[in-house]
Amino acid sequence: MDFSSDTSAPAHPAVLQAIAGVNHGYAPSYGADSSTETLTALLANKLGTEDFDVWLTASGTAANALALAAICPPTASILCHEEAHIERDERGAPEFFSGGAKLALLPGENGQIDREQLRRAMGAIDRSFVHETPPTVLSLTNLTECGTAYSTDRIGEYADLAHENGLTVHLDGARLANALVSQRATLADMTWRAGVDVLTLGLTKTGAMGCELIVLFGAQRSRFGDLRARAKRAGHMPPKLRYLAAQGIALFQDDLWLELAAQANCFAQQLAETLCAAGGATLAYPVDGNEVFVHLPKTVVGRLRDAGAKFYPWPGGSHRFVCSWATMEDDIGSVRAVLSS
Amino acid sequence: MDFSSDTSAPAHPAVLQAIAGVNHGYAPSYGADSSTETLTALLANKLGTEDFDVWLTASGTAANALALAAICPPTASILCHEEAHIERDERGAPEFFSGGAKLALLPGENGQIDREQLRRAMGAIDRSFVHETPPTVLSLTNLTECGTAYSTDRIGEYADLAHENGLTVHLDGARLANALVSQRATLADMTWRAGVDVLTLGLTKTGAMGCELIVLFGAQRSRFGDLRARAKRAGHMPPKLRYLAAQGIALFQDDLWLELAAQANCFAQQLAETLCAAGGATLAYPVDGNEVFVHLPKTVVGRLRDAGAKFYPWPGGSHRFVCSWATMEDDIGSVRAVLSS
Amino acid sequence: MDFSSDTSAPAHPAVLQAIAGVNHGYAPSYGADSSTETLTALLANKLGTEDFDVWLTASGTAANALALAAICPPTASILCHEEAHIERDERGAPEFFSGGAKLALLPGENGQIDREQLRRAMGAIDRSFVHETPPTVLSLTNLTECGTAYSTDRIGEYADLAHENGLTVHLDGARLANALVSQRATLADMTWRAGVDVLTLGLTKTGAMGCELIVLFGAQRSRFGDLRARAKRAGHMPPKLRYLAAQGIALFQDDLWLELAAQANCFAQQLAETLCAAGGATLAYPVDGNEVFVHLPKTVVGRLRDAGAKFYPWPGGSHRFVCSWATMEDDIGSVRAVLSS
Amino acid sequence: MDFSSDTSAPAHPAVLQAIAGVNHGYAPSYGADSSTETLTALLANKLGTEDFDVWLTASGTAANALALAAICPPTASILCHEEAHIERDERGAPEFFSGGAKLALLPGENGQIDREQLRRAMGAIDRSFVHETPPTVLSLTNLTECGTAYSTDRIGEYADLAHENGLTVHLDGARLANALVSQRATLADMTWRAGVDVLTLGLTKTGAMGCELIVLFGAQRSRFGDLRARAKRAGHMPPKLRYLAAQGIALFQDDLWLELAAQANCFAQQLAETLCAAGGATLAYPVDGNEVFVHLPKTVVGRLRDAGAKFYPWPGGSHRFVCSWATMEDDIGSVRAVLSS
Repeated sequence: MDFSSDTSAPAHPAVLQAIAGVNHGYAPSYGADSSTETLTALLANKLGTEDFDVWLTASGTAANALALAAICPPTASILCHEEAHIERDERGAPEFFSGGAKLALLPGENGQIDREQLRRAMGAIDRSFVHETPPTVLSLTNLTECGTAYSTDRIGEYADLAHENGLTVHLDGARLANALVSQRATLADMTWRAGVDVLTLGLTKTGAMGCELIVLFGAQRSRFGDLRARAKRAGHMPPKLRYLAAQGIALFQDDLWLELAAQANCFAQQLAETLCAAGGATLAYPVDGNEVFVHLPKTVVGRLRDAGAKFYPWPGGSHRFVCSWATMEDDIGSVRAVLSS
Repeated sequence: MDFSSDTSAPAHPAVLQAIAGVNHGYAPSYGADSSTETLTALLANKLGTEDFDVWLTASGTAANALALAAICPPTASILCHEEAHIERDERGAPEFFSGGAKLALLPGENGQIDREQLRRAMGAIDRSFVHETPPTVLSLTNLTECGTAYSTDRIGEYADLAHENGLTVHLDGARLANALVSQRATLADMTWRAGVDVLTLGLTKTGAMGCELIVLFGAQRSRFGDLRARAKRAGHMPPKLRYLAAQGIALFQDDLWLELAAQANCFAQQLAETLCAAGGATLAYPVDGNEVFVHLPKTVVGRLRDAGAKFYPWPGGSHRFVCSWATMEDDIGSVRAVLSS
Repeated sequence: MDFSSDTSAPAHPAVLQAIAGVNHGYAPSYGADSSTETLTALLANKLGTEDFDVWLTASGTAANALALAAICPPTASILCHEEAHIERDERGAPEFFSGGAKLALLPGENGQIDREQLRRAMGAIDRSFVHETPPTVLSLTNLTECGTAYSTDRIGEYADLAHENGLTVHLDGARLANALVSQRATLADMTWRAGVDVLTLGLTKTGAMGCELIVLFGAQRSRFGDLRARAKRAGHMPPKLRYLAAQGIALFQDDLWLELAAQANCFAQQLAETLCAAGGATLAYPVDGNEVFVHLPKTVVGRLRDAGAKFYPWPGGSHRFVCSWATMEDDIGSVRAVLSS
Repeated sequence: MDFSSDTSAPAHPAVLQAIAGVNHGYAPSYGADSSTETLTALLANKLGTEDFDVWLTASGTAANALALAAICPPTASILCHEEAHIERDERGAPEFFSGGAKLALLPGENGQIDREQLRRAMGAIDRSFVHETPPTVLSLTNLTECGTAYSTDRIGEYADLAHENGLTVHLDGARLANALVSQRATLADMTWRAGVDVLTLGLTKTGAMGCELIVLFGAQRSRFGDLRARAKRAGHMPPKLRYLAAQGIALFQDDLWLELAAQANCFAQQLAETLCAAGGATLAYPVDGNEVFVHLPKTVVGRLRDAGAKFYPWPGGSHRFVCSWATMEDDIGSVRAVLSS
């Protein structure tokens, strides 16, 4: 009953197998190896386009911050939800990597930027007024920090609005697989076809040891040289890059990443139902992916903890339960047993 | 005959075994796991002290830059050799992580800072003169960028000089194992006992997939909180830290890292002798570790290349050959065969 | 009828006279001159203490950003009002100077931080949680961006709260003279005696050409060396510093600065009354200093503009009118004439 | 006999007169005033072109650092002489403003970059090699830090070389007036016509209170918006900009700046002759401008000091004497008297 985080789960066996599979012989350092090439080809196939460049990191914080620094100058700002991971949980990484850019925060229910607030923020931009810090980037997160999913349409709508106002669109996809499964969307439809210019695609929470992709689409590819230089000086160009690539290959092959995400989502649904079946529990947010945010009676919290369940209290008074590829039927069953005892 | 770099070598099988060994069950994220604890205990044993704090990264560039940023304010400078890795090969990482500190370069033969030049630089420090950028750190590298090793005594002497002048001492130990073997020194003697305040200890080139340790000794431990915060915002706090720790454990256990380094050093000696036995070859620098820098006749270069040997031309006209744990008897034999044919 | 800004006003004649007065002979550069010494003595007298260090800049943005960078590490954040000048109107200067620190925004009426929100923010600090960016500074502004004044008591209360939670207190006093006059407070009482650790004291808006003081009190004096180094590398150590010092001397002598502020405040009161006497006008905020924020009927706005009055529309629908030392009886009279015509 | 620095001299009376001249009435803040317009027109006339944008600062350090940050990304480096002011005397300002770019140092006699070394550095650039930090800017200084002047031809030659290799050319003209007079060159010929892309033109050392111009020529004008934003966030957009503009107007009108520089240069020649006429003195560098670097017998140094002369010892064993617009016939006469007594 460990629902503490999908980052506490181990890596999927296929990932370790893939790593072992590339661990022979010499390979050019810094991304010139054949595994990276294979991964890129796999990704192209999934994206339905070759009009992209990709870089790998072992850290989601780095992936987001590098992506943002590549598209936001130090004198500008990044529009994002006020509870976005880049604002709340990355210790100022975007500010650091960008050289002091600002995050401009927007409210909205369920971790999703409110449409009207976004419009207003766009309308208020005055690039000629040197004293304010105008946004050049809109950063969306899918799954959001509340475990909800933007629809592909909503992403497309917001991206259009951003483009009309001269902004570049970044998608923080630390749990993108869960969002894709939830929205029955393809990777292509939810990213470049919806207007996403720069994607950070996380695989760590899905089942990797540590593997995140930064993808620059179309016109943004012109920034790839800069991105690589920034990755290098930030220590995100590990010499033996083949081990990162191997993880991505393992998860993309046969769409294992989507399979694992579907499973985690499914368990989250079951867990939500189980928890709510107990009296007095209410969901804090809709459960679109692999996370359940739920207001629980104190007694229920106590009984779960006593039985050894792991989960975190969350700002706002709810508790967060996260399912992962490693969650098992038994975990849900144990919760059910505790609650019905 | 791949002598291109110790970073092109695969990871040692023990490393992968260790990773597989920790890949079960949930583990607290971000370094609170038991593997990290085990590694710390192992390290304490090797260092002969518990008066240190340690952080893990997957990148040597990051390890150096984080270490330096923790001890050098943005308004100060770092004394180092003019060919130091932090100056030449890290794309401005120290400047980036520190917020714009400067590197102050010192010359010296064989990649080692000249004693007299160091004294002079120390003597010229005027901390009251606000226009110049005074050094607060002396950064040494062992092995140096020329593959030579500082003796423990020399490190101690330079550290004393640094301390007398108010500087903190950093040791870039990307190939420290090779230096320890070469100088028949213990880890304790060449680091904190010699006056090193902050150590970056690399295991990647020795045989890891990607694992580097930043060690703060004694009084510098007060900066550990700051170091962790910097690691976090730089994306060097990967959630599943156990996989980094496992690599360190594998290499420290039974002193595997020293065994592998000794082997690489030994092959480098054999390679140097083999190359020099051929007419017209002269060593550019003494061969103290696992790297051979050698001036070769063009014809020899051509014959080696034709036979499939991999090695790089080096600034100054020599060529660099690097041995690693994966170098085999046969590799040296093949070189010998080419040269004698 | 130019109420556009106190920064569009010329310098007070006494300021130019003082500049001319020091414009003879050679003077040591970079603050070692006798004018800077005189200014410091004058300031000590006004502050009723010698336990401070002071640095001069020509820019309020620089004064704030340098002050904040000296007390906020890049890995931390600064608590301030969501409409604070440092957040809204300085193009990311605090982020730039600090190396990427964050501003954490607090709401509150009339440009003043809400007490309850401040308490809550303090209570939520968890310095051991490395992922969030904890505040190390509370920055207050007096006058606020809404032209209101914090009382000395309120500043003292907030400063106590900050100190109890380990924060340093910064006061942005771009219009401090107006606040002092409004609150009938002494400089000492509203600053170090109330718990302010670092003060930026603006004279530009009061009547200087360009002159702002950064004052470090008590324990914060240990950061003065760092502050000077930061000023130097930011280009805020102009060689001929005597011309900055002369401006300060002119305004402090015989408390000219307070006299000018009192006059501007007085005209602002008259202007507010005049505007409100016209039907349909309501003050957006209380008028504590030299600024009037007022909701005006469109027709009134039009008539004023037609008559040549200068003033700015303000976020939220009001208009801002600023009085300065250069505002004259006639300016108010003209407004009265327009409105009553 | 104050030869300590041209920055210890007062401002020329015409400068103060000009400041007083604009000190009436309201003026738009931040550079939208008519004085700035007048200055721009004057400058266009001197430059013989309108194809430029200009920004004003009160600090030479800021002017250089802003100019460099506008043309050098954080991931790149700036080629300059190893004794350049931006390397030696600005406390890391270029590194700070650029977000961590590096300075790459070149040797050369008399403070001038050696032609052969420059060619070699250009030849070694490999923009595809991500680990090194390639230069994107060549920064020249005229007068150099040794008081010598590059000829217009030399600047043109070096600029051509830079352009051929994809670099932008920056000229640090803190003492440009002295160089122009020395080389009998026009401002146009020594700057944009010679290939200079970005100029920092100093007037402070020539006779201003504090006034430096950053001029972007031709294609570099596209960076003007970015430059202004950087100036704003660095606190180099003082509200009452008219006082900076007035200083420039005073010095450009009737070419007062060149007249003052010519006078200072002339006195430096006389001083050099006077000093060398005394036995045992030798010039350290040719005297092209208003600075004399001279190796003096200890006894001479002592006698001058005893007589109240002010001048600084210089690295390398010489002493520096600086003449300025405020140097008088008598100052030279007094030196002569001391030496011949």
